[in-house]
Amino acid sequence: MSGNDDLFAPTEAVLRGETADVYFHRTKQILEKAGVNPLVTMEVFAGRDGILCGMREAQTLLERVHSPEAVIESLSDGDPIARKEVALRITDRYQSFCLYETAYLGYLSSGTGWATAARATVTAADGVPVIAFGARHIHPNAVGPMEYAAIVGGCQACASVIGSRMAGTPPSGTIPHALVLVLGDTVTAARLFHETIDAAVPRVALVDTFHDEAEESLRVGQALGRDLWGVRLDTPSERGGVTPGLVFEVRARLDQAGLGHVRIVVSGGLSVERIARFRAEQVPVDIFGVGSAISGAPAIDFTADIKAIEGKPIAKRGRIPGLTPNQRLTRW
Amino acid sequence: MSGNDDLFAPTEAVLRGETADVYFHRTKQILEKAGVNPLVTMEVFAGRDGILCGMREAQTLLERVHSPEAVIESLSDGDPIARKEVALRITDRYQSFCLYETAYLGYLSSGTGWATAARATVTAADGVPVIAFGARHIHPNAVGPMEYAAIVGGCQACASVIGSRMAGTPPSGTIPHALVLVLGDTVTAARLFHETIDAAVPRVALVDTFHDEAEESLRVGQALGRDLWGVRLDTPSERGGVTPGLVFEVRARLDQAGLGHVRIVVSGGLSVERIARFRAEQVPVDIFGVGSAISGAPAIDFTADIKAIEGKPIAKRGRIPGLTPNQRLTRW
Amino acid sequence: MSGNDDLFAPTEAVLRGETADVYFHRTKQILEKAGVNPLVTMEVFAGRDGILCGMREAQTLLERVHSPEAVIESLSDGDPIARKEVALRITDRYQSFCLYETAYLGYLSSGTGWATAARATVTAADGVPVIAFGARHIHPNAVGPMEYAAIVGGCQACASVIGSRMAGTPPSGTIPHALVLVLGDTVTAARLFHETIDAAVPRVALVDTFHDEAEESLRVGQALGRDLWGVRLDTPSERGGVTPGLVFEVRARLDQAGLGHVRIVVSGGLSVERIARFRAEQVPVDIFGVGSAISGAPAIDFTADIKAIEGKPIAKRGRIPGLTPNQRLTRW
Amino acid sequence: MSGNDDLFAPTEAVLRGETADVYFHRTKQILEKAGVNPLVTMEVFAGRDGILCGMREAQTLLERVHSPEAVIESLSDGDPIARKEVALRITDRYQSFCLYETAYLGYLSSGTGWATAARATVTAADGVPVIAFGARHIHPNAVGPMEYAAIVGGCQACASVIGSRMAGTPPSGTIPHALVLVLGDTVTAARLFHETIDAAVPRVALVDTFHDEAEESLRVGQALGRDLWGVRLDTPSERGGVTPGLVFEVRARLDQAGLGHVRIVVSGGLSVERIARFRAEQVPVDIFGVGSAISGAPAIDFTADIKAIEGKPIAKRGRIPGLTPNQRLTRW
Amino acid sequence: MSGNDDLFAPTEAVLRGETADVYFHRTKQILEKAGVNPLVTMEVFAGRDGILCGMREAQTLLERVHSPEAVIESLSDGDPIARKEVALRITDRYQSFCLYETAYLGYLSSGTGWATAARATVTAADGVPVIAFGARHIHPNAVGPMEYAAIVGGCQACASVIGSRMAGTPPSGTIPHALVLVLGDTVTAARLFHETIDAAVPRVALVDTFHDEAEESLRVGQALGRDLWGVRLDTPSERGGVTPGLVFEVRARLDQAGLGHVRIVVSGGLSVERIARFRAEQVPVDIFGVGSAISGAPAIDFTADIKAIEGKPIAKRGRIPGLTPNQRLTRW
Amino acid sequence: MSGNDDLFAPTEAVLRGETADVYFHRTKQILEKAGVNPLVTMEVFAGRDGILCGMREAQTLLERVHSPEAVIESLSDGDPIARKEVALRITDRYQSFCLYETAYLGYLSSGTGWATAARATVTAADGVPVIAFGARHIHPNAVGPMEYAAIVGGCQACASVIGSRMAGTPPSGTIPHALVLVLGDTVTAARLFHETIDAAVPRVALVDTFHDEAEESLRVGQALGRDLWGVRLDTPSERGGVTPGLVFEVRARLDQAGLGHVRIVVSGGLSVERIARFRAEQVPVDIFGVGSAISGAPAIDFTADIKAIEGKPIAKRGRIPGLTPNQRLTRW
Repeated sequence: MSGNDDLFAPTEAVLRGETADVYFHRTKQILEKAGVNPLVTMEVFAGRDGILCGMREAQTLLERVHSPEAVIESLSDGDPIARKEVALRITDRYQSFCLYETAYLGYLSSGTGWATAARATVTAADGVPVIAFGARHIHPNAVGPMEYAAIVGGCQACASVIGSRMAGTPPSGTIPHALVLVLGDTVTAARLFHETIDAAVPRVALVDTFHDEAEESLRVGQALGRDLWGVRLDTPSERGGVTPGLVFEVRARLDQAGLGHVRIVVSGGLSVERIARFRAEQVPVDIFGVGSAISGAPAIDFTADIKAIEGKPIAKRGRIPGLTPNQRLTRW
Repeated sequence: MSGNDDLFAPTEAVLRGETADVYFHRTKQILEKAGVNPLVTMEVFAGRDGILCGMREAQTLLERVHSPEAVIESLSDGDPIARKEVALRITDRYQSFCLYETAYLGYLSSGTGWATAARATVTAADGVPVIAFGARHIHPNAVGPMEYAAIVGGCQACASVIGSRMAGTPPSGTIPHALVLVLGDTVTAARLFHETIDAAVPRVALVDTFHDEAEESLRVGQALGRDLWGVRLDTPSERGGVTPGLVFEVRARLDQAGLGHVRIVVSGGLSVERIARFRAEQVPVDIFGVGSAISGAPAIDFTADIKAIEGKPIAKRGRIPGLTPNQRLTRW
Repeated sequence: MSGNDDLFAPTEAVLRGETADVYFHRTKQILEKAGVNPLVTMEVFAGRDGILCGMREAQTLLERVHSPEAVIESLSDGDPIARKEVALRITDRYQSFCLYETAYLGYLSSGTGWATAARATVTAADGVPVIAFGARHIHPNAVGPMEYAAIVGGCQACASVIGSRMAGTPPSGTIPHALVLVLGDTVTAARLFHETIDAAVPRVALVDTFHDEAEESLRVGQALGRDLWGVRLDTPSERGGVTPGLVFEVRARLDQAGLGHVRIVVSGGLSVERIARFRAEQVPVDIFGVGSAISGAPAIDFTADIKAIEGKPIAKRGRIPGLTPNQRLTRW
Repeated sequence: MSGNDDLFAPTEAVLRGETADVYFHRTKQILEKAGVNPLVTMEVFAGRDGILCGMREAQTLLERVHSPEAVIESLSDGDPIARKEVALRITDRYQSFCLYETAYLGYLSSGTGWATAARATVTAADGVPVIAFGARHIHPNAVGPMEYAAIVGGCQACASVIGSRMAGTPPSGTIPHALVLVLGDTVTAARLFHETIDAAVPRVALVDTFHDEAEESLRVGQALGRDLWGVRLDTPSERGGVTPGLVFEVRARLDQAGLGHVRIVVSGGLSVERIARFRAEQVPVDIFGVGSAISGAPAIDFTADIKAIEGKPIAKRGRIPGLTPNQRLTRW
Repeated sequence: MSGNDDLFAPTEAVLRGETADVYFHRTKQILEKAGVNPLVTMEVFAGRDGILCGMREAQTLLERVHSPEAVIESLSDGDPIARKEVALRITDRYQSFCLYETAYLGYLSSGTGWATAARATVTAADGVPVIAFGARHIHPNAVGPMEYAAIVGGCQACASVIGSRMAGTPPSGTIPHALVLVLGDTVTAARLFHETIDAAVPRVALVDTFHDEAEESLRVGQALGRDLWGVRLDTPSERGGVTPGLVFEVRARLDQAGLGHVRIVVSGGLSVERIARFRAEQVPVDIFGVGSAISGAPAIDFTADIKAIEGKPIAKRGRIPGLTPNQRLTRW
Repeated sequence: MSGNDDLFAPTEAVLRGETADVYFHRTKQILEKAGVNPLVTMEVFAGRDGILCGMREAQTLLERVHSPEAVIESLSDGDPIARKEVALRITDRYQSFCLYETAYLGYLSSGTGWATAARATVTAADGVPVIAFGARHIHPNAVGPMEYAAIVGGCQACASVIGSRMAGTPPSGTIPHALVLVLGDTVTAARLFHETIDAAVPRVALVDTFHDEAEESLRVGQALGRDLWGVRLDTPSERGGVTPGLVFEVRARLDQAGLGHVRIVVSGGLSVERIARFRAEQVPVDIFGVGSAISGAPAIDFTADIKAIEGKPIAKRGRIPGLTPNQRLTRW
């Protein structure tokens, strides 16, 4: 995963500690006044198994703030992690990094939640590519990291510009219902798309705006012929959503019309369970477009525990003092 | 809700459309080339009942981009909304705002999800204040809007600096386990806090780091006396979490020691169900600190539908053409 | 309920005892040989509450076979009955009627099962008429009694010729998908129907054969204008079935096109639960067409018990000897 | 399965189309007036897996009505069929057979429902014979086809005269409670049965009318000795029904009395689950008598789809145009 | 409740501390050696709501062992108690009573469990008397206290001699199946009972040993006439148990035979749920005989907590130091 | 299992028949008066599979009362038994033993219930020893037999003096919370225990009375060093009970402090399910202390059936006459 490094940099607000819980400011203030600044070893682990993500952002942050004495080890974005496995271990003067605990836990908790959910859809899709389409359900400031995490989790591409840049993949998208509505006809929209947009972009027509999906698929297929890469079925729930039967029928009618080359993209409320059912029934889907099943995934909470101070094992009640061995960690 | 206006402004990435789905860029390109730019009426509504949030951010964005012809109406942050009720109606040249659909839906979907979840905890708490503590489970770039939404939903305060600024409330926090561990003793930590931090900040001691919670509560109470505002119980799940019995006991032991003025703050994995159970059993909690029950709330998906073009009713299949009446909307 | 009396007559097979269980033939043979033929009182009751049906057929049978000494009392088709309530009481020489127990229990068990199921759909429809459409799921020899029972249970009409004759109501039907397919177009089929069929028959177009249901509804509406009585939505399960959203949309689009007079008939896999949900969501359905929810209803088993012989109370183990009082019975 | 051919013939009402849905009459009238009568290929399939039945009746009907051009293929009664597998394919002038769609679907839906349910009980009985006893729960006009279907599904025999004739098996039955009550004693009834009825019919005594089942079994056994073929346990639900313990006990007491040759027939509310439990507990049952578990089985709905007109593939929305291959079909 | 006082006395083994947990012996040994013997206040409470029992036995024990300084307060057998309500408070030199904690908790836990379960059956029986029949399911050494507790909980009588003596009520019983079997006939057994047993004992015949229950009820009724007080139905589960239908039938047949004065006692596996169902269906039961629903009731665990030492509040972690107010306590 | 024979002897009350149901007294009186005293064969069996216990007490009773003609066979305490398997067969003059049916069934029902429940915990513990701690939840008169049964079922030891004597094992116990409270400190209590109690008794400190369990474990460990055998965790439910996390942490902290030899005993509300979960999570528990999961186990009801009189097979309805073969029985 290459991607653009700058896009992983912390915002100014994060660097200034504005996104931190206030008690970390107070902690720093107290320790400064008391002149206490020991070498602390902090271990960070997740509460559930998952696919790690958010570490590249956490690293970009910590590299800007740690002291020269720091020793930091971690796993990497995309690594599978086990519950309670140490994913990040920081040994540094405590005042150097105490202000950033909220932020690095946040990067890891959210990123790992998204990547893990993406992996679940990719696993269910069992070889059929999955595209992340969930930007509209999430705060715009988190769109890039979310779609990057989706790709870390195994998605083939995502729809947002910023997510694609972070992941270093071309953005993937079709056309919105709005374009069809504004132009008044699906075939017109498809034709204008074909005439206007760079030839490298696959032509995928959205076929449920005005008429029956099977009917429109044939109309667009006949209009664009070999130039049509695929059709997207996104039937709204008010019309029963996309069913296995609809996909089978559109596939059969396209094939009967000599349009066997036209692929079928399915989207709209796809969950892991629905994807698995499509696959179990051998529904001829070529691409799944997945939204809130990834973007709305619950975070996988990470916890940061002090396990040693100046090399001496210590821990709060409920945790075990001293370092937890993990040979998989790599030193930064 | 006053708060700082600048904090609601879109980022540069949002303004440049980088967080948008790529197909909106292509749509704009096609329409520009085709010279099509009608006056479009777009209606935006939620898929579930909830407490609206994200509108202030959506407004700050749209006000920077719309054309002079635009007419926009909406409900406001904090308004209760019904499923499918129109919360925002934009009538404008389509090229002016088509690039921002991903962003304004994202503001509304995420904000309303958080505010609605916050309201559920506040309702369960039935008069006992709720503080939002969830910054660590969420991407730092979304911490401010999330905690602002929590307060819109009814929380008394939040812990992050940026959320507090957006909401115009003082940040609320105690001390982290880390401070106690670094200083080696709960009473020492509480004393230094008291000596260092501005007197306006209530002194709340975290009492589960080294010793039994009841024991530490008494030690800190005896050390700080009337200066101690409260104690926070945050017992980890490895130790059974905070139980009703623990709160009853700490309350009784504090009262018996003449420390009846010391409040009890409870945190750690609090869900709506657990809060409701605490209240049903009349557990003497003074403040609930709630994290992932708010920060991890699922988005409430918003949908944007074209309902009229140049004043003529239209809609995609599955939706009803023409404007949906809603007398509650206010024109910007 | 008038109806044609002959249609309630037993078949020759029934009169000859061919549909009886063989042991009744043997019983008669034994009693004849033994010269035993007492006056027996048989009580017949149902195992569940319901709406009685099948009695008119049972009566038509028994009136052809009983001896001059017979005294028979019963409730009537359409009467509500309680579990274990006596619905029919026969006092007669046992050899006269023993051969017909299988048949009269069969009339009552099947008829009451259908009428009771019909009543459940009618109750769920809460004032919206229900039409019985289930003939295709049942043996043709039982179609008439089943659809008669549906009307006894509260349906407004049924689709079969024979059921309508039994119930004395005009048959109700639209057109099959086959006619549209053979003629190649929905509007053509509707026009030919209008030109060919007696004007007393309401014109109801089936609108899901070739194109989108909303689109076809408008096309047919515009073609037939005030002559169009209604449209029928029968979307197959492969296309998500008929959803509340589809009905709302078709209603709105018809109204917007000045076709407010066109009614909406809904059919296809309607169960009591689905009808109730349509009503709870205030979906603008004008008629429900119900099939297997009525025709596939389980029988309500009836039992015949000897309760007295020559006026002397007797019963088999598990039953109480002597007559069970029921003031609602009417003597034939 | 031989059986009497005439018993499979359609009734006059079916041949006149009286059991048809009225819209098929109207369809025919419209096509006649329009002079449209194409060669149509109709495929008929079931909505669930099952054991096919009703085809012999469907064939007897269609052979009386089709045109000389007709080509018809099908599977046969008793064949296992898969969901959506084509069980019948008719190619004929549409006016020739359109009136009979309700009837042939009805034969297949009801027959296949019964045969499939019978197979389930036979499978559960795991080698112990099952006799169909359900005539009393079904409309007499359908008794023959139902019990024929039960035997197609694997039952060893049925109780009705007509069903036995259709299946070509001797009818099976014991004696009714009524005979015992009228004669006043179980042993008397058994003796008279033995003296009166043809020696080819096995003597099976019903033993729960007046006294304890075990007691009566011994009394009848001692009275008839080797002439007694079996006893039937039909304890009513008011007395707890037939339990495994009762069968074990009757078996043991019969054996201890030297009546090891006397078989035990169990009946009364037997479901697939209860039969399976009897078998799992190795209860010594020799025959199961099953009623409403077969006669009250839900129909397995069949659907008829036009798939080609004049050889050209076509289909309504939701179905795939053109013939569905099925090598198992046999041409009539 | 009078009863025989001696029957509540502790056994020698209890007095010698043999039934105590060994650590209480060691505790006493340690305190003796250390010369520590403070005035300790122990509070005893239950973990669930219930009907208190076992206190009379606890009191009889403690009165034999406490020091002259002791102050003891308690509630009494039969009192309803709430969860965590103090039921017993002992203030005494700790060495005097520490050895008896296992025993007094045992009296209270078992007794309260039984009394509470008895109350549940009595409440379900809703006015119909309940007799305790459970001695055979419990260790003989606990039969007396168990049946006494059943009567404390509301039972009208019990079957054991010792329980009846403890409760001061006449024992209640019918005859065992064994007597009928040994004498070879139900009527013979009933006659000999009538001739032999004191006239004050009601004559209740057990009627399910050899023949049908209804048949035997009539035989015994006809044999004893007005001398027969009742019949007991105890049908074993192998025969379906006692069903509502059986009781209705026996009642009807008795009434029809002029034996309306004969009562019906029902026993055999009666749970609270089954009793409630009998009552809800208005089954004419005159007495319920209940066994393991009472004798097998789970104990209601009691806990003993030190709440003060020499008058100074103290408690272990998890409990609140100091006396818990309860105005309902009575000083011994 | 050796144990003290006298402890298995019946009490005087049992021998006098006072714990018997009164109808056995009446039965004996009737038979004496009638001069009927046949040789009766009684078979005794359980209603569920289990581990037999109570037979030694039953035997000690019957050996004191049977006639010289008696022939008795049985299985032994600790034998696994199957549902309905004959565990005891008595052939004797009926008057000799009829009075003791309540008692011997009671010994067997209660003992087998406890032993079977004990076995379930032992099986769940999968090699980790289980100690019975349930005396406080049971009537003191049954403590001995209950704890003996626990050991028959597989427990390593029990806490009561009498149970230990019956089983012939040393009693096992730690110290009560009361001792710690009276002495004011856990370490003091442990030290005095060590100085006072016989060196053969392992020193196990209870570590949850005043302070955090991990903290106290270390304090006691440091005070007693190698003399400390183990610590007991018994955290009350008000403090979340003993969790897997607590055990892992105490183990780790002990090991880090060089106290790897100190074992961990876990008690408090342990059910089979909780024990199984501890084992599945590989929690380092050295001993489980189990209370009401054994002492509160439901009895396994035993039934006594007459199967022959003077050698002639007989049985009540619902049971099979004659002896049930069981080659496992041993003659006394």
